[in-house]
Amino acid sequence: MAATAIPRNVLYAQSGGVTAVINASACGLIEAARAASPRIGKVFAARNGILGALAEDLIDTSAESDTDIARLRHTPGGAFGSCRYKLKSIDEQRAQYERLIEVFRAHDIGYFFYNGGGDSMDTANKVSQIAERLGYPLICVGVPKTVDNDLPLTDCCPGFGSVAKYVATSMREAGFDVASMARTSTKIFVLEVMGRHAGWITAACGLAAQSAAEPPHLLLFPEVAFDEVRFLARVKDCVERYDYCTIAVSEGLRDSAGRFLSDMGTRDAFGHAQLGGVGQIVAQLIKDRLGYKYHWALADYLQRAARHVASRTDVEQAYALGRAAVDLALAGRNAVMPVIERLSDSPYRWQVGVAALKDVANIERKMPADFISADGFGITDACRAYLAPLIEGEDFPPFRDGLPDYVRLQNLAVPRRLPDFAL
Amino acid sequence: MAATAIPRNVLYAQSGGVTAVINASACGLIEAARAASPRIGKVFAARNGILGALAEDLIDTSAESDTDIARLRHTPGGAFGSCRYKLKSIDEQRAQYERLIEVFRAHDIGYFFYNGGGDSMDTANKVSQIAERLGYPLICVGVPKTVDNDLPLTDCCPGFGSVAKYVATSMREAGFDVASMARTSTKIFVLEVMGRHAGWITAACGLAAQSAAEPPHLLLFPEVAFDEVRFLARVKDCVERYDYCTIAVSEGLRDSAGRFLSDMGTRDAFGHAQLGGVGQIVAQLIKDRLGYKYHWALADYLQRAARHVASRTDVEQAYALGRAAVDLALAGRNAVMPVIERLSDSPYRWQVGVAALKDVANIERKMPADFISADGFGITDACRAYLAPLIEGEDFPPFRDGLPDYVRLQNLAVPRRLPDFAL
Repeated sequence: MAATAIPRNVLYAQSGGVTAVINASACGLIEAARAASPRIGKVFAARNGILGALAEDLIDTSAESDTDIARLRHTPGGAFGSCRYKLKSIDEQRAQYERLIEVFRAHDIGYFFYNGGGDSMDTANKVSQIAERLGYPLICVGVPKTVDNDLPLTDCCPGFGSVAKYVATSMREAGFDVASMARTSTKIFVLEVMGRHAGWITAACGLAAQSAAEPPHLLLFPEVAFDEVRFLARVKDCVERYDYCTIAVSEGLRDSAGRFLSDMGTRDAFGHAQLGGVGQIVAQLIKDRLGYKYHWALADYLQRAARHVASRTDVEQAYALGRAAVDLALAGRNAVMPVIERLSDSPYRWQVGVAALKDVANIERKMPADFISADGFGITDACRAYLAPLIEGEDFPPFRDGLPDYVRLQNLAVPRRLPDFAL
Repeated sequence: MAATAIPRNVLYAQSGGVTAVINASACGLIEAARAASPRIGKVFAARNGILGALAEDLIDTSAESDTDIARLRHTPGGAFGSCRYKLKSIDEQRAQYERLIEVFRAHDIGYFFYNGGGDSMDTANKVSQIAERLGYPLICVGVPKTVDNDLPLTDCCPGFGSVAKYVATSMREAGFDVASMARTSTKIFVLEVMGRHAGWITAACGLAAQSAAEPPHLLLFPEVAFDEVRFLARVKDCVERYDYCTIAVSEGLRDSAGRFLSDMGTRDAFGHAQLGGVGQIVAQLIKDRLGYKYHWALADYLQRAARHVASRTDVEQAYALGRAAVDLALAGRNAVMPVIERLSDSPYRWQVGVAALKDVANIERKMPADFISADGFGITDACRAYLAPLIEGEDFPPFRDGLPDYVRLQNLAVPRRLPDFAL
């Protein structure tokens, strides 16, 4: 390729729901690109993900100091903005794909890095295809990220380990609280966690318990149809044994007909069906049928933004994958994604491998059936062996005035060279 | 007192809602008592608070190793169990007060330490009175504790600083998340925090913002009647300015008629009014009137159990007050409570002082009016100056296998010497 003779620029974009460590990947990527100078030109970031690329709204990361880029490693959220926007097939949205290439050409983008989940890997793959069809020399590399932990061909997904550590920590702490209060007050505590389709995060709550007596006592997975009678019997038994019962429930819990519990329960003051709040639905059910006083918590964004208690393993992997993406690009590998390969559980050892984007795109990895205990309310030893290393190690951010000291970048715009484009 | 000739025992009890640092007070108290041996005998703890004292269900803490007692300093919840049980006046419940003295006599309790909030200080004061009336030599010392931060005569209450640090950290982190997503998805984030009658915890959320542009953008205090029109106008303005809006709301938010918003809004599938969930009510109101997509989180017990991100200041004060209680008792001070006296804001300096229980009991300290900004949606500089030192410093617990390593004591029962007592 003639284009390799002069250093071409990078475009990096963040996609989908952000995590506590997606910026650690950005940090690794930008640091590796800076170190690779002059083989690589500037690193631009798309503002608000692929939308910024389409709108030619690019950020010049070279305006940021090395120190501030280093601080990305410990800053949650998406430093350049993300978006929920899925490009359809090339045939359906050819104008958009061509616009992307036009923007790339205008800014001499030779490397496109897309940091996201399954949909984003699909998009990155299609961008690679359209570039090839149009004869535009481009290397596309995906960087995995999702708290849902549902990408195939990687042992785990950056972002998940830190959510796992946060929910297990929170469950353990709330468990100590409820145990203290159970004699005269709260006997039931329910923590609702993310996971619309897969129970990975709910399973991670189970790491808090070192024995059947310890919180959480029951897990409610989206993979297991909610059986009210069996569940209530288990709650009652738990309270009779231990004087309290703690439960982690996935937002995606369904009944035997496959309906989300969160869609069926309550209506608000305006008569709308309430989404979310399955934690409260389950807690209120216990109160109504068994009479136990409850508390419930909804972790929501707190769980995926909780950089203050991130997993060091997760941070290191997110950072390593960002760096690896640059290494792959420099080696001329196109339409690939660096992945985590597990070498051993204990001691935990891992390395970075490579997968083809076409093999990753649009395939959801489910939780293995043998990770859920036979009764459907807990995790197995195999699940523990898989999950335990992912929450290993702490990587506390610096604190200032009592609070985590996160960086806000300047995010200066790159001067535009093209006319507007209507989405 | 003849009783001082031979070492008399201690009874320590935890009361009311537990905190991330009430065990730090227990740690300080037990360590000081052990160090004072042989001037003090054994330290007994009442199982589940005052109920254990009434039931003669006592725990012998001398069975616990020094190491495990030291681990209390970093363990949340109430290690001996707490309870919500308020003794009424001596005239109304004379039998219960007399029973307490009977239990004290049976176990040669010379020192009673009650670790709790305003109600508990009232009880401790009454116990002191009944002991005097019955001629039983007893020293009663209160140890302050409450996340509500509403005790008078102390600059702050142990437990509050750690909740403050947790909610401000969480608000900051979620703010980074929402800012990333606002372009195409979530524009509103609401965090519901504790505070039925006072806005201390809501105010603490405000510490996360270093400018008006930063989360949280709006605070909803129980002290300020909710004005839907003004609130929605502010939300709209905020979204137009910054593309998103983040809000912290107190569970005790009320309308202009003084009714809790949480009591008025939604009904569940069974037709019951839903308590709690004011965060969702406020978020749904925004969605209905302004059309913005929202997320909301309910911190609930997570906020007061979050020992993993406790304030070092709070831990040190809780510990110091536990030790000071023993010092006061050994100095023969009866019916008192050690308190925190602030010497300066910046640098923050404090010392332990003393208040009489009769001056503390049943008086709620409100948030000063000049701590809430003129528009009712924020905190003033005076409020910041007060709050900032309380979240200063970190005191991470030890982690093991990726999770905080908290202690569970053996809590061995002291053999009973008295017949049963019906409450």
